[in-house]
Amino acid sequence: MSARHDRRLGGVGLGKVRTMTTALAPVRVALLGHGTVGGSLRQLLLEHRDHVRLATGRDVEICAVLVRDPAKHAVELGELASLATSSLADVVASAPDVVCEAMGGLEPTRGYLLDLLGRGIPVVTANKQLVARHGTELFARAAEAGAQLRFEASVCGALPIVRMLRESLAATRIERLLGILNGTTNYMLSAMEATGASYDDALADAQRLGYAEPDPTEDVEGLDAAAKLAILAGIAFGTTVDVEHVRATGISGVRAADVAHAALLGCRIRLIGRAERVVEGGSATVLLDVTPVLVPISHPLATIVGATNAVLVDGAPFGRLVVQGAGAGGPETASALAGDLVSVMGSEPSFLTTDPHVAMLPVASRDARRDRHYVRMQVVDRPGVLATVAGALAALDISIERVLQQASGDGHATLVLTTHPCTPGALETALAGVASTDRTVLPLLDEEPA
Amino acid sequence: MSARHDRRLGGVGLGKVRTMTTALAPVRVALLGHGTVGGSLRQLLLEHRDHVRLATGRDVEICAVLVRDPAKHAVELGELASLATSSLADVVASAPDVVCEAMGGLEPTRGYLLDLLGRGIPVVTANKQLVARHGTELFARAAEAGAQLRFEASVCGALPIVRMLRESLAATRIERLLGILNGTTNYMLSAMEATGASYDDALADAQRLGYAEPDPTEDVEGLDAAAKLAILAGIAFGTTVDVEHVRATGISGVRAADVAHAALLGCRIRLIGRAERVVEGGSATVLLDVTPVLVPISHPLATIVGATNAVLVDGAPFGRLVVQGAGAGGPETASALAGDLVSVMGSEPSFLTTDPHVAMLPVASRDARRDRHYVRMQVVDRPGVLATVAGALAALDISIERVLQQASGDGHATLVLTTHPCTPGALETALAGVASTDRTVLPLLDEEPA
Repeated sequence: MSARHDRRLGGVGLGKVRTMTTALAPVRVALLGHGTVGGSLRQLLLEHRDHVRLATGRDVEICAVLVRDPAKHAVELGELASLATSSLADVVASAPDVVCEAMGGLEPTRGYLLDLLGRGIPVVTANKQLVARHGTELFARAAEAGAQLRFEASVCGALPIVRMLRESLAATRIERLLGILNGTTNYMLSAMEATGASYDDALADAQRLGYAEPDPTEDVEGLDAAAKLAILAGIAFGTTVDVEHVRATGISGVRAADVAHAALLGCRIRLIGRAERVVEGGSATVLLDVTPVLVPISHPLATIVGATNAVLVDGAPFGRLVVQGAGAGGPETASALAGDLVSVMGSEPSFLTTDPHVAMLPVASRDARRDRHYVRMQVVDRPGVLATVAGALAALDISIERVLQQASGDGHATLVLTTHPCTPGALETALAGVASTDRTVLPLLDEEPA
Repeated sequence: MSARHDRRLGGVGLGKVRTMTTALAPVRVALLGHGTVGGSLRQLLLEHRDHVRLATGRDVEICAVLVRDPAKHAVELGELASLATSSLADVVASAPDVVCEAMGGLEPTRGYLLDLLGRGIPVVTANKQLVARHGTELFARAAEAGAQLRFEASVCGALPIVRMLRESLAATRIERLLGILNGTTNYMLSAMEATGASYDDALADAQRLGYAEPDPTEDVEGLDAAAKLAILAGIAFGTTVDVEHVRATGISGVRAADVAHAALLGCRIRLIGRAERVVEGGSATVLLDVTPVLVPISHPLATIVGATNAVLVDGAPFGRLVVQGAGAGGPETASALAGDLVSVMGSEPSFLTTDPHVAMLPVASRDARRDRHYVRMQVVDRPGVLATVAGALAALDISIERVLQQASGDGHATLVLTTHPCTPGALETALAGVASTDRTVLPLLDEEPA
């Protein structure tokens, strides 16, 4: 793939793509931080080299890894160990084309990013608190210096909600945004409704599973969700949202009795971040809060269970969009950083690859997949009919999972069965010899793991 | 907002943003087609002028509208009527910076786009069949000429699924994609499960409501979904998918009895497009089909009801993402065209606006919104306690929707009530005078319209 995209804004150059005929140098990427997220990103960039090349036409080369104690990371970094440093000056000296920030914290991270952006080096960051608290300062520095600052990974891990608001919906009018922005509390609330557990038991359980920190305050008091809401509301409504302006009520006051009464009212309790355009005193304003809310079970956010995030956006003229997925976790957050990295790399992703290094996948034949199947048919209601069907299936090694036979009153019976996984071809062959009418054969998806 | 983004790929220029100090000329946009989608786009660009400026720093100016019969559109176009033409030469002569294609059909649309792209004019299109059938040719022409071709609007209306696959997940490995890609059939299947209706009745109902065409073949036989799946699978797996390679089975064979038996098995029937990486004969391949599938009710796609689209993507390292929303409709599709238009305009969307023309929204006070509320509290179990609570609420004009009082056995009673919409401040004031312990007050969302 060699088509390249030039987004310069001269009237003539608008939307032009340049075709390069020579191989491009790899993009030099510096990582700040090598913990759960930074380590996952390093791994992703190595393992998904082909995908990055497919998307951008370029390779990525890690040129520096900033950590507090380089010796501690030597084993994990392997052949990249010599790139580890505790000094920002070394990072700058490595001449990065892009910096990926996954070190977290407010300081010294803020100072580092201001320095790097000031030098015109683009930054992608996963740092929620930094963007929520110092976004204005960082974006001002980025604009001054002419460097991109992208932050998809700072809000809700792998969910592409920042891009959706900033790009897909850029020309629309957003009326409100409702989000399950914290996976820990959603896990706890789901557990309380599934088992009747108390808040304390649900918290202990979440801590045991590693969903909640030993000090769970940030999560359970809604502060984590408030920082995310501040960022999203800022984009959605083109306004400056100070985290302190988000009224946050956590779930520590939610009792098992509330969860039970909510169920009686046809509702589930979810910790929801809400940003909504409202008129107050004759002027347009944005109402912002994070609070446990009773959500009717018919609502798209009520069906979100476990440590999942979801964001619902209502507006004109797109109507409603809902996106859900993994809101936290090292690999998930790394995938959002990598998506931003690819965008900074300036690609115009191709519809089709012509890069011989990337294998084109051929289309599989129908029988390449084994699904469970559902079969319904009308058969003549006489002794032995089930034995015939079962025998025909067994002859092709298809085993029956469940079966229901029911007389339909006119000398016929309805036979419904489900199979264990088999190919559609084998099932078709097996049923070809069975005399039946009004037959429906459909694949059947497996239950989702809870 | 004046920061501009330059995506040239020279090592040094990577990810740079240029700051412009002078106002930029408006972007000249030509519309091909002025039907439901084209008309909605024209309206969107006029009504959402501020949002476009916020996102890009530039204004949009419509420079030509290509229609078969200009006279027919004169009234609707109003002061733009003089821009209507039936000749592509006039469109070219209008010197568009970008062309938005919403005329549909394979010819002459294909020829028009090849011509425009060949001149280096970027195109955004809503034309599913054209992209699915002639994507390879169109993208080759675009790459040759150095022009962008974007097509978010061609798949699932307002759902940002193309951008999610091409940009957010560009550096990841997608394992499978499952989609409810056709709203008409999902409406029909939802109706069949809600009312026990037959296929024929559900179809007649969908036709009466305008969800289904008089000739419903494209929708009900899965051909519409197959074209969308071909496009999405091409992006997700970096491969060329011919629509003819997608095995499509529609819903016309699904009987009320199947919907009923699926329910007995804990499932709902959904028309699902599936693209999945499978190994066949030792090689990686992509399995592609569109077929009605029994989906367990615990599955995220089972909860999608009505004329909605949803796409689920599983892969590494992001896990699972699901996006749902309006998959068709003029305004919804126009919003996807506008998102692509904004991207072609080459903006780096700002986090915060500093454009004085765009109003910054202040944060509303807590009482700017009236919610229904849930209240649970322990009160002393004596005559008149409910009268006291009801009186306190009535004094602040808060009316009770439902109430449940239950003795808790220790001389106390649990009182649970829900209110009609009121401000949190009024409710707090009302309850301040009520003697109670263990009190929980939470907002309660309204039921979603079905």
